[in-house]
This record gives sequence, C-alpha cells and structure tokens, in this order.
Amino acid sequence: MSTITLTTFKWVPPIVQGLVRDLRVRWALEEAGLAYTTRLIGPPNQQSAEYLRLQPFGQVPVYQEDGLVLFESGAIVLHIAERSEALMPTERNARACTKAWMFAALNSVEQFAQMFTELDLFAAGQDWAKLRRPMLLAATIARLSKLAQWLEGREYLEDRFTAADLLMTTVLRTLRHSDLVTKNSTLHAYQHRCEARPAFQKALKDHMASFAANAPA
Amino acid sequence: MSTITLTTFKWVPPIVQGLVRDLRVRWALEEAGLAYTTRLIGPPNQQSAEYLRLQPFGQVPVYQEDGLVLFESGAIVLHIAERSEALMPTERNARACTKAWMFAALNSVEQFAQMFTELDLFAAGQDWAKLRRPMLLAATIARLSKLAQWLEGREYLEDRFTAADLLMTTVLRTLRHSDLVTKNSTLHAYQHRCEARPAFQKALKDHMASFAANAPA
Repeated sequence: MSTITLTTFKWVPPIVQGLVRDLRVRWALEEAGLAYTTRLIGPPNQQSAEYLRLQPFGQVPVYQEDGLVLFESGAIVLHIAERSEALMPTERNARACTKAWMFAALNSVEQFAQMFTELDLFAAGQDWAKLRRPMLLAATIARLSKLAQWLEGREYLEDRFTAADLLMTTVLRTLRHSDLVTKNSTLHAYQHRCEARPAFQKALKDHMASFAANAPA
Repeated sequence: MSTITLTTFKWVPPIVQGLVRDLRVRWALEEAGLAYTTRLIGPPNQQSAEYLRLQPFGQVPVYQEDGLVLFESGAIVLHIAERSEALMPTERNARACTKAWMFAALNSVEQFAQMFTELDLFAAGQDWAKLRRPMLLAATIARLSKLAQWLEGREYLEDRFTAADLLMTTVLRTLRHSDLVTKNSTLHAYQHRCEARPAFQKALKDHMASFAANAPA
C-alpha cells in the first residue's frame, strides 16, 4: 500500500481558487481511485531552500510517494495515468495520442489562456494591457477555434475520456472570467461534460475546502 | 523496420531558423539512432483541412510511423525517449523525474522565454511592448535564476543527459537574441554542454539545410 502526499497551497485569493494546479492532480487521483493526504504550504516557505529541492520553481503541487518526489502537474497527472486505465487506454498508439493531447493542452492552449487571464485579472488597469489586449484576445480566440474545430462532433479529444481531457478542461477553466468558452457551444459543452464527472466534483470540493479552512481572519 | 516521417516547414525567415520545433525531434531521433525522412510543408497548406487532421493547430512537426500520427514536439520526443535508453533511464522513478523536467521545460520555462522573445522579435517598436518589457524581463530572469540554482553543481537536470535536457536546451536557445543565458555562467555552460553533443550538431545541420535548399529567390 503506497502513501501519496500532495503539497498544495494553504490559501490563495478567491480569484484563483479553483484554478491552482493541485486541482488537476486531485482530479487524476480521484479518477484513478487512489487515496492521498495533503501537506499545506504558504509563503514564505515555498521559497525556502528545502522546498526548492522538491519544487525548483517554488510552485505547487509536489507529489510524494514512497521516495519518489515529482513536480509539474502535467508530469504528475501522466505518472498517475500511466498506471490507471481510467485515465489512459492500454493500446500503445492510443497512449501516445493521449500524451500528445496532454502536451497540447499545456503547451499549445494553456499559454494563450494564461496570458489572457493574467492580463485581465492582474494588469487590467495598466496602459500596456489596454494596448495589448485586442491582439491577445484575437490570438486566444484563434487558438480556441482550432480546438473547437477538432472537438466538433466528438465527445472527447480522442475516443474516450483521458488524462488529456482532464488537463484541457483545467486549461479552459482558466478563462472563466471571460465569455471565450461559454460563447463557443462546442467548447462549453465539452467543458461541462468533463466537469460533470464525479471525480472532478470531488476534487474541486476538496480543493476548495482547504482554502475555506485556512482563510485569513 | 519502421519508417518515420517528420513534417517540417519548407522555409522560415532567418530570425527563427534554428528555433522551429522540428529541431527537438530531429535531435531526439539522432540521439536514439533512428533514421527518418522529411516531408516539407509551407503556407497555405498547413492550414488545410487535411493537414489540421494531422496537426490540429496548423503547426510543425508531425511525426508519422506505421499508422501512428503524433503532434506536439514534447509528446514526440517523449515517444522516442520511451524506447531509447540514450534519452531516458530505465528505472521507474528516474523515468518519472525525466518526464517531470520535460514538462518543466515546456510548461514552467518556455512560456517566459517565448513571451520575452516574441516581444523583442515581433513587437519591439510597439508602445505596449515598450511598457511591458521591464516586467517581463524581470519575470524571465527570475525564472531562469531558479533553473540556474537547480543546475548549480550539476552537469544535467538529473544524473545524466536525458530528453529533459534536450527540451530545456531548445527552450534556452529561444533567448539567443538576448544576453539572458550567456551572462549566466551556469546556464551558458549547460546549454553549451548539451549543444556540443554530436546528435545536436547533426540535427541542427539537417534542420538548417532544409531552409537553405528552399530559400525564396
């Protein structure tokens, strides 16, 4: 019986609650039916030399299991998916395609969603952001359109729900402050379909409960 | 005997030659000792419905091998690494750590390098870029410092050269127009160490040869 420990933030402001990367890993663990405990961390401890040996960029989550220490939410989800058919098919080529879409979520879609959201949430009043926003909006819409074009007529990125859908859903969630997903019926239905899964609901509940329990007075 | 075909751009402007993502895959194939042929593509064909079925975002490279079609350079490098000890150790936990650093290269370092470079190369004269640059420069330096801190006293990200070093090196190359890597002795030595590998030199030569052979009149 292995023991899995996930390091997550003690508390984050409401504007990013529901978006922090531990949600991905919690979701994957729920889909795979693996129990875990959490270890909470907060500033300034995530920049300590000790923590940077576990997570070189001072971020969350960290995944620990019987001597294995892993960082990067994408890599942790992949590690879980590799041993759970709930998250990845068994056939070799199908596995490769799942991994392709996992990288696509984090390397071809997330950077647009992240740049756009960070601009709106953290820089909206600044001059550069006002000038920059129209172009970035257009680029983000273009990228989402390509994703929607692929998803047209499909339930999931590949033949069935996989770890790639899990990651892509968390990327689309990043845009919740805008109408970029909700106004696209294909993407909206896709996100809703994935978020309706009991494993997601359980993961989100636990993710939010940590923040509620540790909210500043 | 499998046949590997890599789809790459016929030609790109000199400012991005040596940075296009097929370089990563060519390098991985050289390290693994796998032969391949190339299929060249150029505008507007990479936006055709036929091509988008292979590469949903209209980018390169596409990797084809006996019926398997893969996109995303990170996923393709992972696919090659999983069957070549030259790119990934055999022990289970060590493999997981290699994958963690592969995701880190593309998801925790590349977005800074990419944003910074795109601003300098493609938006330098624009008002938003002038206002935005100081903050983005500081964020990029901070992220690179964390990477350098990890690499301090190490030859590679883990105990030996892996596919993660391959990806990280191509990310650091993105910053070649600036002094951000060269002025950091740890990162500079690391990049030089990885690029000195014969497999990289061969891959870069072949990558550039395609562009030279197809340069516009």
